[in-house]
Amino acid sequence: MPRKPTESGNGSPSSANERTYSTAEVARMWNVGESTVKRWSDTGDLDCIRTRGGHRRFTLDALLRFQEAHQFESTGWIHEALTPAGEENGHVDLAFATRLETALNERNHETLQALYYEAATAGDEKRGIELLQRAYLRGFSEIELKEDILTPVLHLIGERWRRGELNIYEEHLASRVTLSATDHLHSRIPHKKPTGRTALCGGPEGDLHEIALRLVVEILETEGWNVISMGPNTPIFSFSDAVRRFKPDIVCISSTILVDLERLRRDYAQFFPITRELGTRVIIGGAAFIDPEVRGIFTHDFHGNSFSEFLTYLRKEFPAA
Amino acid sequence: MPRKPTESGNGSPSSANERTYSTAEVARMWNVGESTVKRWSDTGDLDCIRTRGGHRRFTLDALLRFQEAHQFESTGWIHEALTPAGEENGHVDLAFATRLETALNERNHETLQALYYEAATAGDEKRGIELLQRAYLRGFSEIELKEDILTPVLHLIGERWRRGELNIYEEHLASRVTLSATDHLHSRIPHKKPTGRTALCGGPEGDLHEIALRLVVEILETEGWNVISMGPNTPIFSFSDAVRRFKPDIVCISSTILVDLERLRRDYAQFFPITRELGTRVIIGGAAFIDPEVRGIFTHDFHGNSFSEFLTYLRKEFPAA
Repeated sequence: MPRKPTESGNGSPSSANERTYSTAEVARMWNVGESTVKRWSDTGDLDCIRTRGGHRRFTLDALLRFQEAHQFESTGWIHEALTPAGEENGHVDLAFATRLETALNERNHETLQALYYEAATAGDEKRGIELLQRAYLRGFSEIELKEDILTPVLHLIGERWRRGELNIYEEHLASRVTLSATDHLHSRIPHKKPTGRTALCGGPEGDLHEIALRLVVEILETEGWNVISMGPNTPIFSFSDAVRRFKPDIVCISSTILVDLERLRRDYAQFFPITRELGTRVIIGGAAFIDPEVRGIFTHDFHGNSFSEFLTYLRKEFPAA
Repeated sequence: MPRKPTESGNGSPSSANERTYSTAEVARMWNVGESTVKRWSDTGDLDCIRTRGGHRRFTLDALLRFQEAHQFESTGWIHEALTPAGEENGHVDLAFATRLETALNERNHETLQALYYEAATAGDEKRGIELLQRAYLRGFSEIELKEDILTPVLHLIGERWRRGELNIYEEHLASRVTLSATDHLHSRIPHKKPTGRTALCGGPEGDLHEIALRLVVEILETEGWNVISMGPNTPIFSFSDAVRRFKPDIVCISSTILVDLERLRRDYAQFFPITRELGTRVIIGGAAFIDPEVRGIFTHDFHGNSFSEFLTYLRKEFPAA
């Protein structure tokens, strides 16, 4: 049956919900003239989408491919050349974009964190996406974004909430924005070729924190792993069943706070021998495992103190074929 | 600094993590010859991406734009013309794709549900995405997918888990696959132009269910609303603070199971008058509100029994300008 036109849009210029960039924005980001961007687009080097009005729009993917193919370095906006806010296509306001580009020019982590904090606690998903996406275009790796921007900001938000300086809804908004913004970027950036390796990931029962776990899943996927994610709040006895079924190369357990240690100890004592039987490595990480006594309960092959330690371990122990 | 080539990929043909379709796949889906697809692509009517090897790949977005512009009806695979699995670019295996296309040809909801159940409980995100994406290309609306495929399957999964027929990790995998697959489709399909209206969404404290809430958020976004989502497990007193801050047009409360009714009753008695003050409408939905007594506690402007009832209400009460 034919698609009903009323369901599929209202004649807006772009039919996709993808953040795209105008010729002017790309010119500013790459510090070249608009005519240069148009020429690259006309020669077919730089893919563009045409709006119904005939204007060029560029996707993140097209920009990344061009940068990579030409070993191109994006140098950021020329501050003097800023244009009125209306031109930004309603995505983010000019003041935010200007502060963002300035911070990226200076590679100023503190300002980037402050901007992300502001966007996240206001529930402003567009700004969150814009920040991660532009930073990535400007050379921040996925790991750097996770470690140098997201993690410190989320720690600060947790801390301020515990001190009563932040409303719980603000903490919730920040979580939603973060899950959504990292996923948005992650699903648009290059991933390595499938390695054929499988990781089973989850968080233990009673711990509802999901962000660190999600970031671990993203790192694995970027490295070309097949990831089976059970999410947070999964009983350890159920990890046992899943390991038997999927026979993964590694199991990643991410936890921020552990509750009911006695139950976890009993379940874990049943779980760990199964991994020995199947040759599955066990990797643990997260705030809950900072305590050496807790690490003693959760016998493991590797304990990651940070995302980059985890990545280093992965690349060392499971090198590309 | 220049992007490090080692970070950004390994020379795989497509640099994005986007599911794209080959010429052969599009030809089968539209029931035309490959040369026809190539001709449409060469005339510029149908946008394509070229792989490094020079092959055409088509994004969901490009296919949808073409279908819409030409009022084109996709009629599905010709069963006789199926090609070996290798050609599917490793996305899903041919057996699954064949069963899927057959079910779509017959518009057989039962088979589609069975296929989705299988993919979801196995944690197979790729199949989940493929199913929703192909069904959408074949004319299922976003609402139909939510109501006729996802909802009945998730109910069945919940039911089987309660009866002990499903492991808790399978229920978790199904949730992860669903959140990921609907988000994947949602972020790629056309949304209406921004209406300028704001919705604040959340689930009450103690209820960890997040899928129904997420589906509500997606419906609102597709309709062009600005959505501020606090996620599940948000105290009602915090809804009050957020309503005062964001002054939304509507508040949507989605709940599957309510715990601690006494506390909710007290908090809600403080919350509701604020919405009257600000002219904010309150909409409730989800399994928790099937009980009329519970609905009596949560004074509201509208109670949605289904996603389509909710959509009808939205369009009637907040018509496009």
